[in-house]
Amino acid sequence: MKNIKVAVLGATGFTGEKLIEILLNHPKVEINYISAVVEKAASFSSIFPHFKGKLDLICDNLDLKKAASADVIFLSLPHRVSFLYAPYFLDKGKVVIDLSADYRLHDTKVYKDYYGIEHKDKNNLKQAVYGLPEFFKPKIKKAKLIANPGCYPTVSILSLAPLLKEGIITKDDIIIDAKSGITGAGRKAALDYHYAHLNQNLKAYKVFGHQHLPEINQVLGEITKSKIDLQFSPHLVPMERGILITVYAKLKKKVSFKAIQSVYKKYYQNAPFVRVFDCLPSLKDVIQTNYCDIGFALSEKRLVIVGCIDNLIKGASGQAVQNMNIIFDWDEALGLG
Amino acid sequence: MKNIKVAVLGATGFTGEKLIEILLNHPKVEINYISAVVEKAASFSSIFPHFKGKLDLICDNLDLKKAASADVIFLSLPHRVSFLYAPYFLDKGKVVIDLSADYRLHDTKVYKDYYGIEHKDKNNLKQAVYGLPEFFKPKIKKAKLIANPGCYPTVSILSLAPLLKEGIITKDDIIIDAKSGITGAGRKAALDYHYAHLNQNLKAYKVFGHQHLPEINQVLGEITKSKIDLQFSPHLVPMERGILITVYAKLKKKVSFKAIQSVYKKYYQNAPFVRVFDCLPSLKDVIQTNYCDIGFALSEKRLVIVGCIDNLIKGASGQAVQNMNIIFDWDEALGLG
Amino acid sequence: MKNIKVAVLGATGFTGEKLIEILLNHPKVEINYISAVVEKAASFSSIFPHFKGKLDLICDNLDLKKAASADVIFLSLPHRVSFLYAPYFLDKGKVVIDLSADYRLHDTKVYKDYYGIEHKDKNNLKQAVYGLPEFFKPKIKKAKLIANPGCYPTVSILSLAPLLKEGIITKDDIIIDAKSGITGAGRKAALDYHYAHLNQNLKAYKVFGHQHLPEINQVLGEITKSKIDLQFSPHLVPMERGILITVYAKLKKKVSFKAIQSVYKKYYQNAPFVRVFDCLPSLKDVIQTNYCDIGFALSEKRLVIVGCIDNLIKGASGQAVQNMNIIFDWDEALGLG
Amino acid sequence: MKNIKVAVLGATGFTGEKLIEILLNHPKVEINYISAVVEKAASFSSIFPHFKGKLDLICDNLDLKKAASADVIFLSLPHRVSFLYAPYFLDKGKVVIDLSADYRLHDTKVYKDYYGIEHKDKNNLKQAVYGLPEFFKPKIKKAKLIANPGCYPTVSILSLAPLLKEGIITKDDIIIDAKSGITGAGRKAALDYHYAHLNQNLKAYKVFGHQHLPEINQVLGEITKSKIDLQFSPHLVPMERGILITVYAKLKKKVSFKAIQSVYKKYYQNAPFVRVFDCLPSLKDVIQTNYCDIGFALSEKRLVIVGCIDNLIKGASGQAVQNMNIIFDWDEALGLG
Repeated sequence: MKNIKVAVLGATGFTGEKLIEILLNHPKVEINYISAVVEKAASFSSIFPHFKGKLDLICDNLDLKKAASADVIFLSLPHRVSFLYAPYFLDKGKVVIDLSADYRLHDTKVYKDYYGIEHKDKNNLKQAVYGLPEFFKPKIKKAKLIANPGCYPTVSILSLAPLLKEGIITKDDIIIDAKSGITGAGRKAALDYHYAHLNQNLKAYKVFGHQHLPEINQVLGEITKSKIDLQFSPHLVPMERGILITVYAKLKKKVSFKAIQSVYKKYYQNAPFVRVFDCLPSLKDVIQTNYCDIGFALSEKRLVIVGCIDNLIKGASGQAVQNMNIIFDWDEALGLG
Repeated sequence: MKNIKVAVLGATGFTGEKLIEILLNHPKVEINYISAVVEKAASFSSIFPHFKGKLDLICDNLDLKKAASADVIFLSLPHRVSFLYAPYFLDKGKVVIDLSADYRLHDTKVYKDYYGIEHKDKNNLKQAVYGLPEFFKPKIKKAKLIANPGCYPTVSILSLAPLLKEGIITKDDIIIDAKSGITGAGRKAALDYHYAHLNQNLKAYKVFGHQHLPEINQVLGEITKSKIDLQFSPHLVPMERGILITVYAKLKKKVSFKAIQSVYKKYYQNAPFVRVFDCLPSLKDVIQTNYCDIGFALSEKRLVIVGCIDNLIKGASGQAVQNMNIIFDWDEALGLG
Repeated sequence: MKNIKVAVLGATGFTGEKLIEILLNHPKVEINYISAVVEKAASFSSIFPHFKGKLDLICDNLDLKKAASADVIFLSLPHRVSFLYAPYFLDKGKVVIDLSADYRLHDTKVYKDYYGIEHKDKNNLKQAVYGLPEFFKPKIKKAKLIANPGCYPTVSILSLAPLLKEGIITKDDIIIDAKSGITGAGRKAALDYHYAHLNQNLKAYKVFGHQHLPEINQVLGEITKSKIDLQFSPHLVPMERGILITVYAKLKKKVSFKAIQSVYKKYYQNAPFVRVFDCLPSLKDVIQTNYCDIGFALSEKRLVIVGCIDNLIKGASGQAVQNMNIIFDWDEALGLG
Repeated sequence: MKNIKVAVLGATGFTGEKLIEILLNHPKVEINYISAVVEKAASFSSIFPHFKGKLDLICDNLDLKKAASADVIFLSLPHRVSFLYAPYFLDKGKVVIDLSADYRLHDTKVYKDYYGIEHKDKNNLKQAVYGLPEFFKPKIKKAKLIANPGCYPTVSILSLAPLLKEGIITKDDIIIDAKSGITGAGRKAALDYHYAHLNQNLKAYKVFGHQHLPEINQVLGEITKSKIDLQFSPHLVPMERGILITVYAKLKKKVSFKAIQSVYKKYYQNAPFVRVFDCLPSLKDVIQTNYCDIGFALSEKRLVIVGCIDNLIKGASGQAVQNMNIIFDWDEALGLG
């Protein structure tokens, strides 16, 4: 028996589409509303034929009232748009899970620096809970507004937080070299995403100024109760899906492989979606899953951590569902394979 | 010593870009003008960084007068645009090599059916020479206006014409199943060409109505002096470059493998860019070359021919240069690797 | 409650791996034995890290007795190997679902022609049921030995059988131009499957002699009660997964689009995994699913049918599970998404 | 007029194949001998059909005497093999250009540590010249034995040497995060290089122990006359060709963007194959070229350098030809596009 109604706003983006795919397999929910910016209303399966026979709901431009018929509102909206609609649903007592960046950064000045406009809902920002279950589950349970983490921050924080908190590595000199597939950039009609431009190509972008950097610093700072200011360089790789990060850190003192593994295991023993490996993980093993795989290599003074996720699942829609599961006190892994 | 000046109009499309790359390596020509629809004038190497140190010419919106300073005008323009500018250059006595479809079809009614608008230069259409050197070299030598063949027609005609002309196969029941990489569709910012939509995808399109079908029928008809009405089904394959066609034909009577090879060899013994194989060719062997590779397999009554080309080279820019070489009485293969 | 034990022999091939992935999500079965040719026994998750936390069963060389502890034995073995082991399990009354070709062809002479050796289990061959649920469900329900269909035959038969049976198209002049991703060839360490050889490549292979041709002819012949002798040309496309076929057929007489759709719908109205489209389907829409998508285009005299499947799911492991579901009288779609 | 005869040993590896392709376009040389480990002698174009009509020379197992008929011997051999044959050709006064690692490391103990066996030609090792033209041209001019640089070292040294030598960055805390396509690993029949294993995958490997690390340290040490001990982490990316490195370094003191560019330009103003960019370079712009493209991004204290090359050209065969050109006092760029 399905007992919760959910709405997905922004159903035609990569995360919206994937979210709907996951929700359709979820035993406790029913999708009863979807919307997107469309020229004219159309059944979802006519927009995405792979949903034929699975979801024939009509996808139309947003109608707030209709959307509010659901119990949970997923906002798979662009940054700078979510905070225009979240207040409406929060006022009506709905659970809002926002996959955009709009409620992630506490400091609205930093928001403006990185997203270019003034924050439009400073009021609800305060109650937003950062939806990284491995570190904030107690708060998530009680949340009404989830700021679902960014893709890069998810894997970065999961890879670094335990070692930082336990004082294994120094806070300075942390470098994250991140490699991402194309869907991380969203579904846009642009020459930059043309197959012929991306195939057999590779490039770094926003090397000192990616908008996920302050998010990583803020959350790692909260977890470790200290100021974190790491270096983050994202790269675009010719793949459809997935993020793999290579983290360079310095050991505070010599430490054994086993000791580091113990730290990770202590933090993630009850985390159904973090897997700690004896070797360096390969991206392909997390594709189409909600897992974050972590491994590392060690020298006398230095540590290299490799973490990876599917950006659309653990890095977005899977984690959003994981957060919903926690809020409704269901098995955290329900519907997530 | 460079002795001919060339202009490339439409320099930022896939064929324009590739044409410039080829022309830069050509020992007899100098590129002295390039244009494209741009927001503001910029050096070509700032638009395409791979030309840095090779071509710093400014690329600006078309200025007919400046373009006319060249001896040869390559029109790498979209269909329905070339015929707006060709007359200007022809009037000035320039050699015009048009890579669009505008001067390929003799019948302007068919043109309208397939390209959707009235032909705007019926006058010059009559003098246009179809630039397939393997069959029309004498005419090309004397041409002022070359209708450079389409990519699918190039490989289709080269694969079929000898066998049709020699009466090896029947004219009825010819089916061409064509598979093309993405660049065949031109450089456009559209979701259809998004990496994530094309990767791991495959589809047929315009199955009974592709605009290259009447071109293939017309030219094969001319070569064989009979009416040809074949079936043509193009497919989009997750690759950047290249076309491979699989042709299904019926033998008029039983014939040996050797006999068919002899026919091909007779027609192509002096063609520097057609290679006839003992086995079925692989697409990769023609990528980055001006070759058309052809092979076939035989049963009692049926013949399967496989032909392949690089759509941007033999299927467009390489062939355009081959035509120029012929017009200027240079070695047909000059600058073509 | 899990109530059936299953064993997977050949667990490390592409189909074995995918089968285990599907079975792990199946609510009614428990995998209690897996084997493969290995140098030494190892946990499955150490061989395929993506199974970490999901299946830690030991994978060792085949031990018939241990395997026989299961109720259903899936043979994901190479051709020419399955028939060495199937008799043992059949003798013990087990249900055997063979994913190899060993029990598909009735005529052992044809088997020898195409697979190169004498058939080793002519005895059980007679009781084998061809596991294409859309046409043979009644027999499958009672089967002890399932010959799970080949990937090309699955999509070919589903695309053609209704139209042949209803006399819409002629039996002669049917051509199947098939395009497959790499996994269709099995997991082998060979230069032919090297990334650099396949990327940006495309080729036809076994044009008149592919081993799936007699399988297609035999089954279509049975369904239509007539002799079928079609033409089949497979191609290798630079993709990991999936098959798309383009079928060329001749109409017996002029027929409407709707009429053809009605035929398909009549045959597949109760088939949960065949979807008939108004337009030509794209391969990507069936990837990671058990669907076979079918569409077609029509001219006066000719029909082009496009069908596609995920070769590892509907073309192998998903269909094997579908067959198991039918045998045990469960929902045909159980565990198949 | 061709005036130099060259032999290519190891003609069927990726670098051998590419070397032959380059040499065929070189106006001053004639390939008069090729060899490889083959089952039986065969024309090169039958092994690699794309050479049909270009090189029909027979490729057979190595015959030292025949090879010695050439003036220049290119060894595209595996590591641990080159030093078995180089002495023979050096004794005969031939120019030997070795593309393996056998003559790159001065310290034979380090060689043994990283390549696993004792060095077999310590004698000639002393006269070997490291073939990185941008830094060692005077020595290359007089060399008889060229140790052609590794792919990762080429781009790493070119990216770092000027800044290290000018004291812009500190010697400590240099990290190279390298990303490479598949051909870097050589042409081997192994599951690791199977298309289905590499596609949509990404992984780090040999994080603290790659054999190119001592080569980079040694050469940077020589150029800067100091001990270099940097950190190097290679990654395998789903691409056929190319290497892009992201270098993390610390500035000795605050420095302007212009100042760093001036340093690069000073070092590379006469280097025809190093291009310094105002922005971060993209890999695709160097593919199929002998260029090394370099760009960088700057913060107060930190520098990120991005460098890229085509591993088979500037990282191997193109550079080998560049070295030959220098030795014979030809234009350094002759035959290199």
